Amino acid sequence: MSQPSVSQTFRAIDVIRKKRDGIELSRAEIEGLVSAYTKNEIPDYQVSAWLMAVVLKGMTRAETAALTDAMLHSGDVLDLSSLPVRKVDKHSTGGVGDKTSLVLAPLAAAAGIAVPMISGRGLGHTGGTLDKLEAIPGFNVNLPVAEFRRVLEVCGCAMIGQTAEIAPADRKLYALRDVTGTVESPYLICASIMSKKLAEGIDALVLDVKTGSGAFMKSEEDAAFLAELMVETGERMGKQVVALITDMDQPLGNMIGNALEVVEVVEVLHGKGPEDLRELCLELAGWMLHLGGVSRTVAEGKERSAKLISSGQALDRFRQMVELQGGDAGVIDDTKRLPQARHTMQVSSAQGGYLTSMQCEQIGTACVILGGGRERKEDSVDPAVGIALHKKVGDRITAGEPIATIHYNSEAQAARARQLIESSCVVTETGPLKKRPLIHRVIGKSTEKN
Amino acid sequence: MSQPSVSQTFRAIDVIRKKRDGIELSRAEIEGLVSAYTKNEIPDYQVSAWLMAVVLKGMTRAETAALTDAMLHSGDVLDLSSLPVRKVDKHSTGGVGDKTSLVLAPLAAAAGIAVPMISGRGLGHTGGTLDKLEAIPGFNVNLPVAEFRRVLEVCGCAMIGQTAEIAPADRKLYALRDVTGTVESPYLICASIMSKKLAEGIDALVLDVKTGSGAFMKSEEDAAFLAELMVETGERMGKQVVALITDMDQPLGNMIGNALEVVEVVEVLHGKGPEDLRELCLELAGWMLHLGGVSRTVAEGKERSAKLISSGQALDRFRQMVELQGGDAGVIDDTKRLPQARHTMQVSSAQGGYLTSMQCEQIGTACVILGGGRERKEDSVDPAVGIALHKKVGDRITAGEPIATIHYNSEAQAARARQLIESSCVVTETGPLKKRPLIHRVIGKSTEKN
Repeated sequence: MSQPSVSQTFRAIDVIRKKRDGIELSRAEIEGLVSAYTKNEIPDYQVSAWLMAVVLKGMTRAETAALTDAMLHSGDVLDLSSLPVRKVDKHSTGGVGDKTSLVLAPLAAAAGIAVPMISGRGLGHTGGTLDKLEAIPGFNVNLPVAEFRRVLEVCGCAMIGQTAEIAPADRKLYALRDVTGTVESPYLICASIMSKKLAEGIDALVLDVKTGSGAFMKSEEDAAFLAELMVETGERMGKQVVALITDMDQPLGNMIGNALEVVEVVEVLHGKGPEDLRELCLELAGWMLHLGGVSRTVAEGKERSAKLISSGQALDRFRQMVELQGGDAGVIDDTKRLPQARHTMQVSSAQGGYLTSMQCEQIGTACVILGGGRERKEDSVDPAVGIALHKKVGDRITAGEPIATIHYNSEAQAARARQLIESSCVVTETGPLKKRPLIHRVIGKSTEKN
Repeated sequence: MSQPSVSQTFRAIDVIRKKRDGIELSRAEIEGLVSAYTKNEIPDYQVSAWLMAVVLKGMTRAETAALTDAMLHSGDVLDLSSLPVRKVDKHSTGGVGDKTSLVLAPLAAAAGIAVPMISGRGLGHTGGTLDKLEAIPGFNVNLPVAEFRRVLEVCGCAMIGQTAEIAPADRKLYALRDVTGTVESPYLICASIMSKKLAEGIDALVLDVKTGSGAFMKSEEDAAFLAELMVETGERMGKQVVALITDMDQPLGNMIGNALEVVEVVEVLHGKGPEDLRELCLELAGWMLHLGGVSRTVAEGKERSAKLISSGQALDRFRQMVELQGGDAGVIDDTKRLPQARHTMQVSSAQGGYLTSMQCEQIGTACVILGGGRERKEDSVDPAVGIALHKKVGDRITAGEPIATIHYNSEAQAARARQLIESSCVVTETGPLKKRPLIHRVIGKSTEKN
């Protein structure tokens, strides 16, 4: 019990009590709470009580938008109005093997829109864009805002981490939520994501909301609820927002692990790579191009994206961004120059049949165990380790055939990862009746035209 | 985000999440949380999130008992086993004009049981026993435990405030609840009250749970719920507990204000005083004597109590306690020696008819405004000021007849108090059809025998 002045404490407790009693908070009350907390004028213990009340009582759409807006305006909002093109970003709620951002930023930039992408690091079983970028030797994700803007102007895309100036309220609130059991609220998740994304000064946003065993939202219902919440919140703030509910019941693509995923990104930009990853990249790119105003329809956007890949323009744009951000672009032509694990180990199937399902979160956790992810924010990441999948759900498999290759630097870690991978793969004699779709549904007003 | 070791933080967050998700906590989890918090090993912000989850998700009876037990054992528990009589206390959930403790402690002591009473101060619109006792010049409510025990041994009753050694977890938790909107939970209220009372080393407890416009629990349903919770919690801990749900829809007795209430206590101990106060004192005393094993039935306990009053023995015991605790016992024979306000002012009814209702919380607040109570714990109290009621609900009143006399030391405060009293009294032409009972019901296993 320390901190602030009596009057402010009194206001905070009124806001806590109202939320506790299920009464809708006004924009001014939410703004007051966020602003005071950002300025350290109200203590953590009051805000954590309020957060728990929000988790258990929920928020209205107006409250969610007000919270997002207050968090957005707790710091700097980039003004990219001097750029003569539309600014569009993509955000994923996080999954295993999800490396689409590294494909999409240069691809959309090559199509003539600007992609000012501020990303996060991996946490828990999911990977993070920043960790993947940092697998490229020299790549600097900590550019000052002026430099970020310059890269964006030169090549149409730039990819950095959150700065202290962007949505500081989210930084503070997230740290508190993390230790008070208040992470799991769609309203708080929405405000956290949308405040950071809208601080990028974008015109439109494509959301990739994952569902399935490797997603934070396991059920499609929960994923759709969060997606609708984010779309409506973005629209209330004058942005075009579309959300794709996409499958995360197995890893996306074949590679999991930072350097391995960069290899797969380069493959996709070469017009190769696994089908599911290619397909999702084209679908998301189609939406980005459409919302970015450079294609009349999503289908046209997809078509154009495929051409930008086959012509090598998307890859060139990737190479340019890597160079501008200090990275060794040589790795693109010779991916062997990326960090390599010292050892590999096969994981094989004991029986033959069909790979019926993969417990996707466990595969992600196996990568964390290898050192490729982090359980706590402070942990460092080994870019070289990871898992290369040889089979995906629905594939035929014979007894003894390899399901995956583990890339590792520690025997003990590899043994634990192997166990997890083995236990996460279900092989049955008969094939699955029906494959889960890659795109479950699309949510957003902007979809009405298509 | 400061404080404790990782392992303890992890345990706390598990307990928070479980409660958030509505899963019953084990005794070990609750004990761990309370113990770690008392030792400052987990931070306020985790405990406040947990408290909010308790407010919104509730607790089972087993959890409530475990919390009470953990708080009770966070500090010293008095061992009064050397006293050869049964130890019985009474506790009220707080009201306006409730001065029964000052009557009951010496009365029950005169009957041969021991009353080790640890009380609180007034807060908000309700008065507090300690403030009333301190209206007696020299009365010391801060006795060391050894001295408390000595007074108890000599005269059978002693009345002090909470010490740092008694239930320190409650002290810490209450301070946090007070600023985080987590006061209003029957489970937390139960654990707070019962942990402190059971730390007194008593065998039995009579609870006076107030209901009505001047009580914390406005509805009888809420009061009964809290009463049942406290009775069951006490019984689970091996104590005899009975709860009386009593009326607080108007002030108890005629006097509100610390010195004024002492005057009324002396009147009751003289066999006089207002009927409702007398009646409630005898009822509660009847239960104390019965649970204390000195009367076979409650009725017999009431009868015996009435005799102890008419014989002057109860008053003698009061005088003895006042002397032993350093107070000026002379005020008992000459109540004019109690602190006197400089001015008085009449509040009259504009119209004639029947006094149909009094907004009891407002009457309590009027006394606080005069300086007789405190809005914050830090506030000091003026013992002299207060309100003397001349009419109670159901009484006939003629136009211009005084309803109350305000005893005050500040004109401005008196003017505000007068307004509040006027607006809180409803006078109608026809009388109320039915008077609210003084005792609404009695809850507890021990009632089965009666």
